[in-house]
Amino acid sequence: MDYTIRKAKPNDMSKVLDLIKELALFEREVNAVEVSVEQLEKDGFGAAPKFTCFVGEINGTIEGMALVYYRYSTWKGHVLHLEDLIVSEAKRGSGLGTKLLDQVVVFAHDMGVKRISWEVLDWNKDAIRFYENKGAKVMRDWDVVQLNETGIKNYLSKL
Amino acid sequence: MDYTIRKAKPNDMSKVLDLIKELALFEREVNAVEVSVEQLEKDGFGAAPKFTCFVGEINGTIEGMALVYYRYSTWKGHVLHLEDLIVSEAKRGSGLGTKLLDQVVVFAHDMGVKRISWEVLDWNKDAIRFYENKGAKVMRDWDVVQLNETGIKNYLSKL
Repeated sequence: MDYTIRKAKPNDMSKVLDLIKELALFEREVNAVEVSVEQLEKDGFGAAPKFTCFVGEINGTIEGMALVYYRYSTWKGHVLHLEDLIVSEAKRGSGLGTKLLDQVVVFAHDMGVKRISWEVLDWNKDAIRFYENKGAKVMRDWDVVQLNETGIKNYLSKL
Repeated sequence: MDYTIRKAKPNDMSKVLDLIKELALFEREVNAVEVSVEQLEKDGFGAAPKFTCFVGEINGTIEGMALVYYRYSTWKGHVLHLEDLIVSEAKRGSGLGTKLLDQVVVFAHDMGVKRISWEVLDWNKDAIRFYENKGAKVMRDWDVVQLNETGIKNYLSKL
């Protein structure tokens, strides 16, 4: 099989959105996906791109993607965040996820950041094992907190 | 007491770094703070600022800060991340934390984002109670994952 990892182009966003939806289904949240192909094209490839996306192809077909952006750590300065690392269900275990993560780590190093962060569901044991095997630390004492759109509206209504 | 919440200026960064170090001490990680006043000034106030910082003053003295930046959700698009919300130990319980969070939520709404995210230590029960009272959801099944500077070097050495 022929593997290619490359930076995504605007016309890859349709396939990238398919992968995003496939992951959301796996995470039992498929209705939470509100972005569109047009929004991904606009946000990722404008004058000030909001993210960098890599795609992984097997024999010329996109079967995976990794999407990253910068965050700001008040301890470390500029750091890289891996928002999504997705391989299509049909190609899990093919090694494409490793190749995508390799690319992300090389990119982080080239950009001079001191940390790559991401988030994982605590019941996703396969993902946790994969990340720990790669040397990442799963910080089980840190939880993610979110105030969503409804929460923001409710909050403001009480001010 | 006279409370003021305002956008930080470059010459507030010395006091902001003091607050960052105070929080790191509370989180048992004080040696992890590598940023300098100069770096905060450069990163927050250049041509392309990497964060927005608000400070909270009581009677003209900075006693708290909130630092935010954008992230990119593949479900929601542009979202806001609250990296730090800090009130000096001497002023905990004064209400300054609430005023800072109010400012962050107003800012998020003004910027049109659909979500504000942050992270919390699972043993920090006071913080969790505070956030949940404000309508935020603590997602206990999501863990934070990090590959640090040493991890990045080790990873690359095996490629």
